Amino acid sequence: MDDSALLSLARQIKKEKYARKMGLKLLEVDPGHAVVELQLKDDMTNIFGMVHGGAIFSLIDEAFEISCNAHGTVAVALSMSITYHRAPDAKARLRAESKEIHRSTKTATYEIKVTDEDNALIASCSALAYRKQDKLPFL
Amino acid sequence: MDDSALLSLARQIKKEKYARKMGLKLLEVDPGHAVVELQLKDDMTNIFGMVHGGAIFSLIDEAFEISCNAHGTVAVALSMSITYHRAPDAKARLRAESKEIHRSTKTATYEIKVTDEDNALIASCSALAYRKQDKLPFL
Amino acid sequence: MDDSALLSLARQIKKEKYARKMGLKLLEVDPGHAVVELQLKDDMTNIFGMVHGGAIFSLIDEAFEISCNAHGTVAVALSMSITYHRAPDAKARLRAESKEIHRSTKTATYEIKVTDEDNALIASCSALAYRKQDKLPFL
Amino acid sequence: MDDSALLSLARQIKKEKYARKMGLKLLEVDPGHAVVELQLKDDMTNIFGMVHGGAIFSLIDEAFEISCNAHGTVAVALSMSITYHRAPDAKARLRAESKEIHRSTKTATYEIKVTDEDNALIASCSALAYRKQDKLPFL
Repeated sequence: MDDSALLSLARQIKKEKYARKMGLKLLEVDPGHAVVELQLKDDMTNIFGMVHGGAIFSLIDEAFEISCNAHGTVAVALSMSITYHRAPDAKARLRAESKEIHRSTKTATYEIKVTDEDNALIASCSALAYRKQDKLPFL
Repeated sequence: MDDSALLSLARQIKKEKYARKMGLKLLEVDPGHAVVELQLKDDMTNIFGMVHGGAIFSLIDEAFEISCNAHGTVAVALSMSITYHRAPDAKARLRAESKEIHRSTKTATYEIKVTDEDNALIASCSALAYRKQDKLPFL
Repeated sequence: MDDSALLSLARQIKKEKYARKMGLKLLEVDPGHAVVELQLKDDMTNIFGMVHGGAIFSLIDEAFEISCNAHGTVAVALSMSITYHRAPDAKARLRAESKEIHRSTKTATYEIKVTDEDNALIASCSALAYRKQDKLPFL
Repeated sequence: MDDSALLSLARQIKKEKYARKMGLKLLEVDPGHAVVELQLKDDMTNIFGMVHGGAIFSLIDEAFEISCNAHGTVAVALSMSITYHRAPDAKARLRAESKEIHRSTKTATYEIKVTDEDNALIASCSALAYRKQDKLPFL
């Protein structure tokens, strides 16, 4: 994907409704690579007043989605395995980085790491995508 | 956990901020078991106008969280593995059921299944919780 | 797959070299379903004299492989997530049952459970297969 | 763990019965880190004449087991998620490297990668261990 296509993708992500709802912010995107940020807010807490796992996973999923679609063809999630290492501060600004570790015609695999401002590892995830032949519809 | 404690847990879940943000609704809770519902909304869509994986996972995580805390002691997520089977309709009402398949003093394992109104399987998840000794703080 | 094809598959499994090396024994096979048995032996122990995780996984993988190939077309493993619940007795006879919970043209998902003679749950696994179009070569 | 303890661990691994059965060879060991080698043999093939998933997993599990026990206290596997990227040559010499990405008092997480002689990525795995307080019994 060339720079102008990456820009189109970035624009599409900026308009993504779920990203807006959650406050997910794209920081970096390249083919097979993405960095996304999430400022935790009070409305993301669970019954213990800690950050809800769904919020952390949403951040991970956004980075994964962007990295695997940044080759210019549609990719969809098949399976994801997440491990939670430590609870972040309820007001932390989290960052997820997704890196492609393997890619074939049909599938691709990503490792995604979530860290806080102090670079402490919050969660890690391994994710498998199915790669369709179709070009991204909004390019 | 007796009925009055389960009621306290259900009340706490009703006040959960993330559940309110997402519209997650508890339908059933028993020790090691929970059913949660999510009415998909337009603000949960991704760059393709499909449901964002983060929304589906949030539903799963809510059912998991409730089922493993319904023994009356604090349980926290260690790892979760999700497989996506088919994309739900963007306006579907989804249901996640979490069932405990094993429990020891320290850990417990759950299988969570997400289905739509037609009982089609949308996603499935295996989740591992670490069980602390502490009683739920809000009981 | 009809009965005669299932029989051909069962014969092929009986000749499988890894199954012979490990002593894996097919008990049941149907499209999307298989039960395999493993008599644990002294040569399967780890540095603690307990059963090696690799032996338990080999049993799981055999049941998975058979269940997803029992539709008559070639299926290969994409990803597997295993959770260990309790250590089996070092001389236990274990049984793995693989059940298909979803199948589409391209992929299929299985839940595999390992139990001992007392029906105690030893390990559980969620497994995702990629389904090729090719018929099984030995049919 | 100091050098003499690591040596004791390495000696214990050399005597491990499952490692002998499979031909697993320890190449490197440090606290939280291990490299193990497996020369694939004809008796490790499945019904298609390809390498059995159980053999690849056994290699992964050996590297994981060693890396998490190399802190000097007993660690046991809780959950593992493996993704298969490509089938190795049936006569390849595979290498698994396990790296610790997080460690707390109670749990630790490892990323394990399997490569062949050409450094092609065969499989990758994320693994979670439970850390007991007990010292390794054979030290």
